[in-house]
Amino acid sequence: MVQNISQTRPIVKYQNGKLQEEDDEIVTEFPITIHINGEEFATMVCTPTHLEELVIGFLASEGVILFKDDIADLKIDESQGFAYVTLKSKIQLNQQQYSKRFIGSCCGKSRQFYFQNDVRTSKTSMTKTVIKADECINLMNTMQKNSLVFKNTGGVHNAALCNPSDIIVDRTDIGRHNALDKLYGHSILNKIPVRDKIIVFSGRISSEVLTKAAKIGVGIVLSKSAPTDLAIQLAEDLNITTVGFIRGQSFNVYSHAERISSIDEAQMS
Amino acid sequence: MVQNISQTRPIVKYQNGKLQEEDDEIVTEFPITIHINGEEFATMVCTPTHLEELVIGFLASEGVILFKDDIADLKIDESQGFAYVTLKSKIQLNQQQYSKRFIGSCCGKSRQFYFQNDVRTSKTSMTKTVIKADECINLMNTMQKNSLVFKNTGGVHNAALCNPSDIIVDRTDIGRHNALDKLYGHSILNKIPVRDKIIVFSGRISSEVLTKAAKIGVGIVLSKSAPTDLAIQLAEDLNITTVGFIRGQSFNVYSHAERISSIDEAQMS
Repeated sequence: MVQNISQTRPIVKYQNGKLQEEDDEIVTEFPITIHINGEEFATMVCTPTHLEELVIGFLASEGVILFKDDIADLKIDESQGFAYVTLKSKIQLNQQQYSKRFIGSCCGKSRQFYFQNDVRTSKTSMTKTVIKADECINLMNTMQKNSLVFKNTGGVHNAALCNPSDIIVDRTDIGRHNALDKLYGHSILNKIPVRDKIIVFSGRISSEVLTKAAKIGVGIVLSKSAPTDLAIQLAEDLNITTVGFIRGQSFNVYSHAERISSIDEAQMS
Repeated sequence: MVQNISQTRPIVKYQNGKLQEEDDEIVTEFPITIHINGEEFATMVCTPTHLEELVIGFLASEGVILFKDDIADLKIDESQGFAYVTLKSKIQLNQQQYSKRFIGSCCGKSRQFYFQNDVRTSKTSMTKTVIKADECINLMNTMQKNSLVFKNTGGVHNAALCNPSDIIVDRTDIGRHNALDKLYGHSILNKIPVRDKIIVFSGRISSEVLTKAAKIGVGIVLSKSAPTDLAIQLAEDLNITTVGFIRGQSFNVYSHAERISSIDEAQMS
């Protein structure tokens, strides 16, 4: 059974001073529970698309796997919302290892894995990729246009893995981190080298989003929204270029601006 | 040392085809670690305002406390980002109790407490409160106007505890759940009865937000954004009225519309 990404529900609309019933498209929030080697590992809610990518990206992001080959078997029971992962090697899913919790800014909930695993998996960027100002604007506009299918339901996040001149893959999810995990899973499944790629993101660059980008391994993050001071500090440290407020024909560069060239400079070179 | 809610940083702005340096206001993402009875309980990142309310609201939301009087002592070390809580009774902070994880839609991270504690702490609303359509619109507009101080930094969430005709208290945070926890903490600290109150919220109504509102104990949630299908199902079950997309002079009612009256009906009564 394939899940729908949205569904029609009856609502009561207030307009022109009157309440009246009509139908509306509501975005689906789908729970999926991941079992690893027969043991319950985590339950997340998501938009039910590209679930294999989501599971693989999540496990890589949490430091459970590094490559697709670390997984012996992955079965997804979409009707019940379960993913059964069998790893090649027996790993110790030690609860104690995750006991220092870190709670994220975007939803205030537990970031169980932050301290131990994030430090281990976040990569300092060594990319030589540079991008022109108009390419930043084009990538953001193209990603936003591609996700028009979600326009009616509202409130979903878009993320895209890109070259400076084009989008390689874009993913959408009600969870901002899920959208990034789907990109991560896609790049692992398809063995796409990510080091010289760019992430384009519809949401704010919090420390969690920056950390996720560092785990994926990109050197440039472009956002439609604002970064936090902590994200900028992490980006400085991890050698990642952060660009925010890409709107119309302007944007702000918050860290490692040396990778961004204006049209003028591009024309000169 | 009092933390700043934002700070000025040098950025590189792209505008009119040119990159140039200028200063920008960046929102602070402040980590705070909560110790309970000498044991590390959780670390969250937040906007460093109303930290006492945040800690108390978070503990209540997680089912650790019910009343202010459950806390023997609370010390906040704002310079280092620590909160030291001493409870009157010794509680068992059993990691096993939280081991069934639930990962939220808004950020895709671990919702450690969902199953056990949420079921225990979510309240079915018994409120008799009704609200007029124009009051919904006024509350949203007033809350958004009040938070103009954050306008320059972008990307913060606002939440307000309200009567139909006025805002009792409003709070802002980079974390959507933190803003709600601050409201919860405020109502506990000031012994404000919440059952007949309304929550106005700037963000999307995910299942997590709806659950948080149910824990606080309100019967009406008004949002500027969209709900998810799971949130609407929970709201139906918990007898909570959810209103979304409050923009201009219109909005949508997704559950328990019997508590919303149009101006026409209000004039007739």
